[in-house]
Amino acid sequence: MRTTLNGATQMTTRGEIEKLVRLAIRQSLTSRIGDSQPEPGPSHGAPSLRVSISARHVHLTDQHVEQLFGPGYKLTPDKPLYQDGFFAAKETLMIVGPRRRMLPEVRVLGPTRPHSQVELAITDAISLGIDAPVRHSGDIAGTPGCVLVGPAGAVELKEGVIRAARHVHMNFEEAAYYGVKNGELMTLKVVSPQCSVAFNDCLVRADAKAKLEVHIDTDEGNACNLDAATEISLKRQEDCRCHG
Amino acid sequence: MRTTLNGATQMTTRGEIEKLVRLAIRQSLTSRIGDSQPEPGPSHGAPSLRVSISARHVHLTDQHVEQLFGPGYKLTPDKPLYQDGFFAAKETLMIVGPRRRMLPEVRVLGPTRPHSQVELAITDAISLGIDAPVRHSGDIAGTPGCVLVGPAGAVELKEGVIRAARHVHMNFEEAAYYGVKNGELMTLKVVSPQCSVAFNDCLVRADAKAKLEVHIDTDEGNACNLDAATEISLKRQEDCRCHG
Repeated sequence: MRTTLNGATQMTTRGEIEKLVRLAIRQSLTSRIGDSQPEPGPSHGAPSLRVSISARHVHLTDQHVEQLFGPGYKLTPDKPLYQDGFFAAKETLMIVGPRRRMLPEVRVLGPTRPHSQVELAITDAISLGIDAPVRHSGDIAGTPGCVLVGPAGAVELKEGVIRAARHVHMNFEEAAYYGVKNGELMTLKVVSPQCSVAFNDCLVRADAKAKLEVHIDTDEGNACNLDAATEISLKRQEDCRCHG
Repeated sequence: MRTTLNGATQMTTRGEIEKLVRLAIRQSLTSRIGDSQPEPGPSHGAPSLRVSISARHVHLTDQHVEQLFGPGYKLTPDKPLYQDGFFAAKETLMIVGPRRRMLPEVRVLGPTRPHSQVELAITDAISLGIDAPVRHSGDIAGTPGCVLVGPAGAVELKEGVIRAARHVHMNFEEAAYYGVKNGELMTLKVVSPQCSVAFNDCLVRADAKAKLEVHIDTDEGNACNLDAATEISLKRQEDCRCHG
């Protein structure tokens, strides 16, 4: 699937590049859960809740890293992510959609995975002309593809472009605190001046090594103006009673 | 405040322009309210609920229309909006932010108003480098400005760039049905596969001539993947009991 970089790129604005950088370095919001929990769990008091905005990014296989960046190439960790062992790499890629619309500098996250995957907000997907379905990470069968262009070559992904569904990482003690199990759904409430939002359908990803963190994308973070939020809280979805 | 068009524009991508057009022509979702209303109001059954996505756009004064498009110029209605008397004009403008980052083709809406105003999603505002506050239309005191560039000239707005707060238009009969008054808040619930959202803080704008329609922006529409929504409903905010 390797093709040669042929220089057929499009011009882009400085603004678009700055936007990418700004989104990539955006600070995540950390806050204490308030008194919305009915009773304390097995831990001492409420766990510290963090909500992070995932800007668009790419996961790669070892093979695709070599095709895009050169034989024997390994990703260079630049910034550790909150979940231990994961990192934003120094490397970025151009993503090209159908009709040659593109995003010039999309961050690669590490470590490498068994399947390459591109995670976009719907706003990004519209700008690329890709109808990205809402999927959980790894569930890419039948999704659209795209072309990835790196400094040493290009890769045509046959599938793997998704809008990542919102989810929450936590360890088993935190899951017990909330009364949820891996695979269940929660609701994240964000109180923000004139634009509060309750996000349903946050999938629980419980793992012994995970740290409590909700992942939403840039559209979701901007819809609730997360940077200006005054309160965040998390509940089992069935306890939320939105329009109940 | 009139300045001369000096050609100091930046290159942009075809994709960015196509994105603007795509957002501008996006279809709004119309649906019947389900059985979430406790009892029928004075009208025969539930009113038909419409949720529309407002892509970024500009409102202009008569004076600014002339400065941007030429002496004596009047806006040309292109497409009527759902609210009677309002329209998308054929005219578009370039919006330039600080550090000369820009959006090349932003639609003008008519008719003209007493004050010019630019309504952006936060994603748009980030791309321009403008920290746009969440405000209701017309409430622009102390907001950031920008430069508008048209075919006949440019206008430097000293203020008027906002992220429009979500709101719902309705007539007084519809307000009575929902048990709300002008200026009160409602919650819009959008059920969408893997990304349902409850939007609080929808301001009621009741007017004798209004038609029932919720206005959200592109970030909000994309956060809930409105195009894929299977159910929409509206309630008084105090009846919503989100995280109750």
